[in-house]
Parts: sequence; C-alpha cells; structure tokens
Amino acid sequence: MPDKLLILPGDGIGPEVMTEVRKVIDWFAAEKGLAFEVEEDLVGGAAYDVHGKPLADETMEKAQAADAVLLGAVGGPKYDKLDFSVKPERGLLRLRKEMDLFANLRPAVCFDALADFSSLKKDVIGGLDIMIVRELTSGVYFGEPRGIFKEGNERVGINTQRYTEGEIARVARSAFELARARNNKVCSMEKANVMESGILWRDVVQEVHDAEYPDVELTHMYADAGGMQLVRWPKQFDVIVTDNLFGDMLSDVAAMLTGSLGMLPSASLGLPMANGRPKALYEPVHGSAPDIAGTGKANPIACILSFGMALRYSFGKLDEAALLERAIDAVLADGKRTADLMQAGDKQPVSTSEMGDAIVAKLGEL
Amino acid sequence: MPDKLLILPGDGIGPEVMTEVRKVIDWFAAEKGLAFEVEEDLVGGAAYDVHGKPLADETMEKAQAADAVLLGAVGGPKYDKLDFSVKPERGLLRLRKEMDLFANLRPAVCFDALADFSSLKKDVIGGLDIMIVRELTSGVYFGEPRGIFKEGNERVGINTQRYTEGEIARVARSAFELARARNNKVCSMEKANVMESGILWRDVVQEVHDAEYPDVELTHMYADAGGMQLVRWPKQFDVIVTDNLFGDMLSDVAAMLTGSLGMLPSASLGLPMANGRPKALYEPVHGSAPDIAGTGKANPIACILSFGMALRYSFGKLDEAALLERAIDAVLADGKRTADLMQAGDKQPVSTSEMGDAIVAKLGEL
Ligand SMILES: CC(C)[C@H](C(=O)O)[C@@H](O)C(=O)O
Ligand SMILES: CC(C)[C@H](C(=O)O)[C@@H](O)C(=O)O
Repeated sequence: MPDKLLILPGDGIGPEVMTEVRKVIDWFAAEKGLAFEVEEDLVGGAAYDVHGKPLADETMEKAQAADAVLLGAVGGPKYDKLDFSVKPERGLLRLRKEMDLFANLRPAVCFDALADFSSLKKDVIGGLDIMIVRELTSGVYFGEPRGIFKEGNERVGINTQRYTEGEIARVARSAFELARARNNKVCSMEKANVMESGILWRDVVQEVHDAEYPDVELTHMYADAGGMQLVRWPKQFDVIVTDNLFGDMLSDVAAMLTGSLGMLPSASLGLPMANGRPKALYEPVHGSAPDIAGTGKANPIACILSFGMALRYSFGKLDEAALLERAIDAVLADGKRTADLMQAGDKQPVSTSEMGDAIVAKLGEL
Repeated sequence: MPDKLLILPGDGIGPEVMTEVRKVIDWFAAEKGLAFEVEEDLVGGAAYDVHGKPLADETMEKAQAADAVLLGAVGGPKYDKLDFSVKPERGLLRLRKEMDLFANLRPAVCFDALADFSSLKKDVIGGLDIMIVRELTSGVYFGEPRGIFKEGNERVGINTQRYTEGEIARVARSAFELARARNNKVCSMEKANVMESGILWRDVVQEVHDAEYPDVELTHMYADAGGMQLVRWPKQFDVIVTDNLFGDMLSDVAAMLTGSLGMLPSASLGLPMANGRPKALYEPVHGSAPDIAGTGKANPIACILSFGMALRYSFGKLDEAALLERAIDAVLADGKRTADLMQAGDKQPVSTSEMGDAIVAKLGEL
C-alpha cells in the first residue's frame, strides 16, 4: 500500500516551495521505488478564500487519515483584519491540536556553506547542531478561559497558561529519547521563578528523568537566561525542551542564529497510529514571506528538508533522508544560492524552481 | 531636604556592586552638593534569612516613601528549594507590583570599547542603541487564577495572562514619550496571531498612537519574529514596547546581543508622586551571579549606571548623569576591564572595587 501524503501548500511562498518538494517526491517515487499517494488541499488564507474558514472539516479528516502531512506556510497581510476565529493561523493550530502533535522538533543547524551568513561570529555558530523540542498542543496557545471581555468600561484581554502533568511528561520523554540518539544532554527551560506552571514543568521533567532517563544529562534554565545563553554560546546545548510559547520564541531566535533560516525544517509528532507510525506534520520553520511570494526568490530547501524529516520520522527511510541531505549539501557546495542566501560579491541567485531542479539533478548524480 | 535613596543590595554579587555605587553617591554628595539621605535594607534571600520572607513590610514602606530605590540583584541556589511564596524573586516582584512600577526601561546599548566582546558581528551591533519598554506590573506574572492544582490524579499548573486596556495604554504612552526624545520610532510586540490578549495589546497601542502620538512611527511585530529580527539586525529598532513576559525574554536577548551585559542598567517607573517625581526602582539587568559572588570579579558598572538613570529620571540631574557616563567611557577607554570583559590577550582584569575606585577617580579628573 502506498504511503498517504497530504500536502497543504497554504499561503505566500508556501505553494511555490511546495512545487519543488513535489519534484523531490516524484524523484524518490520514480528512482527509489517509494510509493506515495499524494493529495493536495487548502489551509490558512487559501482555505479561507474558498471555505470561509482556514481549515475545512474535510481537510481535517484527510489529515487525520494521512501517514504524513506536509505544510508550506500560512498567513499574510490580506488576512490581518479577519476575525481571530478564522485567521489563517487557526487552521495550523487546529491541525496541531486535533492531530495531538505534542512534540515539535526544530533543529537549529548551521550549514557550513552558510556560516558567514549569520549575524553571529563564525566561531560561535560554525558546526552548531541543536534540537529544540517544543510542546505544541497546550499551554497559553490553547488554555481556557481566553478572549477579550468587558469589565466596567474597560476591555480586558485574557489567556490561560495551563499544563497537565501528562502533557509535560510526554514531551519530556520525546526530548530524552532524542537526546539519547544525539549527545545525551537535555536542557529544560521555563520561568519557575515566576510561574507556578513553570514549577510543575520543572518538577515533572525532573521526575521523568529520574525514573526513566537517569543516563541523560539534565539541566534546567530560566527561559530568559536560556535566550541569553543561546545568543552567547549556543553550542553549550544539545536538546532543549520547553513549552509552547517559550518554544515559539526560543526556536525562532535559535533558527536566526544559524544564518540558515531558509534552510530549517521542522517535524510535529503525535501519538503512534495503528500502523505504529506517529501522527505527523512537517513544515519549514520560516513563515509565508508574503513580501517575496511569487517572485521566485523563496528558498525551497527548508520545505524539502521537511520532507526529509518525513522520510526519517514517518517512513523510516533513513538512507533516503541522508541521500537528500547530501544532495542539498552538494548543491550548496556548488555555490548555488537562492536570493535569501546572497552576500555582497556573490554571483546571480538561482530561482526557487532552479534550486529544486538542481537538487533533483544532484539526487540523480549521487 | 535631601533626596531619599533606599538601597537594597540583595543577594549574590548585589552587595559588592552596591558598595561601589555608594562610593559614586558619596562623590556626588561631596563634590557636586547632591544631598541624599541613604538608607540600606534587605531584599531577596538576604531578607528571607533574617525575616523568613523576601521583603519585610517595613522595607516595603520605606520603598514607598523613598524618592528612588536602588536594587542589586536577588536569588541564588541556596534558595532554590524554598516555597514559591517566599522565593527571593517574590521580594522584587512585590516591590514592582506595590509601587506600581509599570514601565521598565531597558536600554540595550553597545559600548564602543566592548563591541568586540559580543557574539555578534561588529557591524551588526556597533553603535547599537535601542530602548526596550517592558510592562512590569501585570500579565502572566501577576494574573489570577494561578497555582498547581489537582485534577483527578494529575497535577495541573496554571497561570493567567491578563491585561486591561488601561494597563496597556499607560505603558504605551511611556514608550511613545521616550521615542519622541529619541528617533521617534516604536515597535510593539505581541502574539496577536495566537493570543486574544495580544490582539487587545495591538489594538490599544494603535489607538493611543492614533489619538495622542500620530507623529511617532508605529509598527507591530509578532514577538517570535521580533526575537528573530533582534538577532538579525537590531539597529532597525528604536523603542520596543512589549508585555511583561515577552519583555523579560526579549530584553535579555537584546542585552546579550550588545556584549555589554555587565554594563546595562534599568529603570522601573511608576506614577508621579506628590513631588511630581515618578515612583522608581533602579537595578542592573544582570542577575545575582552566585558563581562569582565574593570573588571580586563582578562588574559594578551596570549598577553604577542604574544610579545614573536615577540621576536622570528621578532627580532631573542630567548634567551629573552625563558626567557619570563620560567617566565610565573614559575608564573603559583607559583599558580598565573587570573579569567579565576580558578577552584573549588582555592584561590583568581589575577587581570590582578597583573599577569603582577608577570611576570615582575619573569623576574627579573630568
Ligand atoms: C504561525 C504561528 C501560529 C506559529 C506559532 O506561533 O506557533 C508560528 O510562529 C510557528 O512557530 O510555527
Ligand atoms: C528575577 C526575575 C523575577 C526577573 C523577572 O523575571 O522579571 C528577572 O528575570 C528580570 O528580568 O528582572
């Protein structure tokens, strides 16, 4: 039976980078005998334009039934004035919540060929390879009560940070498991000095560690200090585990440190399905970049590497994932660069589709 | 009548940096005729050791009656296991809340003499001068309900993000006022794409702008993108205004960018008192650094510059504040460095007290 892939290109540069991913998928199908049943559907503003909401129920059902979902990006200025409940982001958040994708894996890797591109000094980020594990289905993103209310004459905005013990424990386990396959170090980040939910976070991560992963080195850091330390000397970290909101901030900071923002994929994993594979959604770390949509300037590599993560985490195709990564390295080593990776003195950038073609060509050569 | 200064050295390196601040205060009293009535008291772990709580009521009263409070730092591993309600941090949070210090001003400035010291490239941070205005008395730091509760067999950690229109409007005004005296640009940061409290934040900041400060350039950014942009090109910002928790993270990231962490002061300002001056607390951005406490390695400049901010914002002594800043620049230009500012090839560091003495000596020469 072919593996079911649901592709949700979304908004902005989403569709154009996804076009390149499909070339890569087709190559693996034709040349490596991977059998995919690929379906495409709408999410975000693109879905709103058609259905009046950012994710149709039918699309939600397809996502639940898919072996893996591949998402481009959501959002754009066109939708800024929409009511909160139908904003493009709600489509993505619904997928995360209803598929229960609690572990968001965000590698922050500095690609050698791009080390100069960071705003940080080369010795600080050269060779950087950290993994941020962000809790993705709870916390202040989803807690109730929430909303804007009237109190007397005043409006009051309320959101609720809420974590159960079980929610913390399961994402902690994901982090410890990943660490074991890496450098065996986990740093957990919260604000236990100010927030009770942070105290519970710290305690539960420690308990899971002591009971199940005593072999992994565990440290705790306040999230503000964590942000500082990421800027000061990011190589001190191996795996970072943190909550939904801190993870949003810290993973973006970490991604930008590497200079490789247009290159960074992510995986959002849930519980195992009947076939033993986790529910899974893969998407680039970058956003919909509406300012460059349609100009051929977008870098498709983050989205292609997201498909690479799908090969690895959903389909167990480790050799194929490694091959794809090698092909991308080789294309970069050849000096091919999309516009986002140009520096003074560089020659002409390649377009989004030229980059996709170059990667497919390289796959054929390796 | 002399101005009343309440000095709360606190924990870790707090007392030793405060000793140097007192030398500077004494110099201004003796040489420039500034009359201060200085009182010293306990906060944080130091207060807990004596009173069993991190801020005695009596100290709180003194703080309310002071023209300005100067605080060193709070916290340390010795107090990590204390109950949440008596942790050192609660002393600081009580001061902020009861004095209603809603506007926390955190300059992120790169000192020329230290530009090499940042993990960021020199062109990215050289000459950097931004001001982060962080809301300090509300949000998830203080919202109710909060705590760790039992639900069935599970513990649940809860905190509440809560902002009223009035709380947002007043800190927005502080930011716009500061911008007018700087480069006239404010960027407001929240997560309006995910949090209703962020929507209210964005709307109210925009309303205050349109009604009262249409001359100031106002932009809005999601806080995660804001963190990215701070790393990518911080000089795009002039004044950033944001909430308590985002401000905690973003100001720490911004501080670390500059390479000048041991140099950065902060001011926390409230409503005007009867004499027209704002309630005010001044403290360095750095923490209590328990690992180096007592070793003479601490850099007293952040705390001395915090007194400089007091001269400026509480006492209207702009010339004296400028003199103090010039003295510090000159001492750095002389090559004097505390241990935190040493780089490979530098000569011997000066101690905390040698740095204080050098600044006082320089004040006498200028
Ligand atoms: C688009 C937005 C809802 C999302 C988030 O805040 O989680 C994004 O910033 C991310 O990090 O994936
Ligand atoms: C010490 C702690 C309570 C405090 C905070 O979280 O506000 C600190 O990190 C700060 O930024 O002043």
